[in-house]
Amino acid sequence: MRPVTTGPEGPDRSAASPVVTLLAGGVGGAKLAHGFAPLTPDLTVVVNTADDVELHGLAISPDLDTVMYTLAGIANTQAGWGLADETYATLEALGRLGEDTWFTLGDRDLATHIARTARLRAGARLSDITRALSSSLGVGPALLPMTDERVATLVDTAAGRLAFQDYFVARGHRDEVLGIVLEGIEHARPAPGVIPALSDADLVVLAPSNPFVSIGPILAVPGIRTALAQTRARRIGVSPVVGGRAIKGPAAAMLASLGHEVSPLGVARLYTDVLDVLCIDHADRALAPAIEDLGLEVLVTDAVMHDEADRPRFAQELLVAADLA
Amino acid sequence: MRPVTTGPEGPDRSAASPVVTLLAGGVGGAKLAHGFAPLTPDLTVVVNTADDVELHGLAISPDLDTVMYTLAGIANTQAGWGLADETYATLEALGRLGEDTWFTLGDRDLATHIARTARLRAGARLSDITRALSSSLGVGPALLPMTDERVATLVDTAAGRLAFQDYFVARGHRDEVLGIVLEGIEHARPAPGVIPALSDADLVVLAPSNPFVSIGPILAVPGIRTALAQTRARRIGVSPVVGGRAIKGPAAAMLASLGHEVSPLGVARLYTDVLDVLCIDHADRALAPAIEDLGLEVLVTDAVMHDEADRPRFAQELLVAADLA
Repeated sequence: MRPVTTGPEGPDRSAASPVVTLLAGGVGGAKLAHGFAPLTPDLTVVVNTADDVELHGLAISPDLDTVMYTLAGIANTQAGWGLADETYATLEALGRLGEDTWFTLGDRDLATHIARTARLRAGARLSDITRALSSSLGVGPALLPMTDERVATLVDTAAGRLAFQDYFVARGHRDEVLGIVLEGIEHARPAPGVIPALSDADLVVLAPSNPFVSIGPILAVPGIRTALAQTRARRIGVSPVVGGRAIKGPAAAMLASLGHEVSPLGVARLYTDVLDVLCIDHADRALAPAIEDLGLEVLVTDAVMHDEADRPRFAQELLVAADLA
Repeated sequence: MRPVTTGPEGPDRSAASPVVTLLAGGVGGAKLAHGFAPLTPDLTVVVNTADDVELHGLAISPDLDTVMYTLAGIANTQAGWGLADETYATLEALGRLGEDTWFTLGDRDLATHIARTARLRAGARLSDITRALSSSLGVGPALLPMTDERVATLVDTAAGRLAFQDYFVARGHRDEVLGIVLEGIEHARPAPGVIPALSDADLVVLAPSNPFVSIGPILAVPGIRTALAQTRARRIGVSPVVGGRAIKGPAAAMLASLGHEVSPLGVARLYTDVLDVLCIDHADRALAPAIEDLGLEVLVTDAVMHDEADRPRFAQELLVAADLA
């Protein structure tokens, strides 16, 4: 196999809409979902929920919310989480009442967590709640949590086993990660719609999200990895590592500390059973032959979404690579 | 017994601090608590919780919060509930997410409900939570919910049996009240500290709060009415009805529709076993003999707290009437 190189092309509106499913963590997944959204009405985003956290008694789903807010056009693109033009009156008042405030929650963002928590406590499933919240915010694509059950990423470090948001936010992901534990994963079932979204898609994309704490938990939900291994869909992964560095967050550091090569080749080795194509950046084109030796095709392109307008450019290239545009 | 009339006098700082316990609903109780606070360090306010409500999954205690915010000097005195200088970003966002927003909740007020709910769900008692929240806000007097158990005031109307806040806020207390039901009252126990606060006080004051839905629920908690009937404390009630009208809210309408005289005499008849003195306004002085015939003393004064500075004036008059200043 040879590297497939595509250039920017307009979408082929004469073709039937491609059915696309995106597996996503937070920011990288949100950006790519935002890129696909104008290209097809048949977009499903399956989102990691293993970094969900309960704070102040509220059920917070950071990755679901980042994707939802981004698709709704109301995300805080500078911060990578939360809402644009936020205020923080409630959090400040929580601080005065003695509550921990290391996890920043804006006033409007809190409404999402309050509504979600109320509905969960009333017995609703996270997947149904997510559909309702997305719909209220005018989000077109289908947003699915990977599971309706509670899964919690725990991070083993020299400082001990940490809850994910303790590691990620409170301690600023500075601890070396010695291991990842997905608490509850053995009892998790794919949320309604997840398996069909993998089986019936034309294209499944693994977003440029962290392989261990974003994509990893999704694939670890019993049934999902097998469904992805067996789907008739074209499967393209996007490397979250470019030029030896993570586009965002601790992916590179985790690859290193967990014994993997810090490169798209290291990423490719994690996904050989579930990908047809790995998309890498021009910066890493020298690695293409080694990745091909693993049995994957390689798409070499500008694999970084530089700004909002660049997102559909990149999504379009993935559709072209899958012969869907 | 003859009417006791007092004038405004400065507190007698040479006396030992009087131990005062106030039974309170919302605004009337809050104002009187605020009046007593500078006069004695030994003030306990026992607050109605039967109009507590769960909205958006959050445990809201309107009367506790009105008293707490008033004593903290941060209450919205115009509205009679909530905080001064509030913003409403979260509530507006909840509305966009499809949540009912008929019960106005400010951003900083929400922090109280979020913190309270989180602590309740973690297993803490409302009384302990209330002490911690009050302390965080710098409130000196002891604030006690009447009970740690859940009691719910239900209001029978021509439109059916309504939850209290449906009747009071959502429907603007326009329905004629045909009956009051205190759901759960038979299982309620006085919160820790309530019985000693009644037994050991020098003065117990029934605030000018609604006899049926504010003071009534407190007295209906098993054990409280008996403790008040038996205490050695001087017991003074303040009529919430002046000149045939309630100072605030639906007390007058409820007296009428529930078959009572709409006057301090109607109020007095509800409290004969638990009061030594009923405080009435000059406007109602003609009723003093009839109230005395019930076995109560009558304190005739300006029984309306006209502004913030007027609150200690009134509280001081009650101390004088109890020979405590």
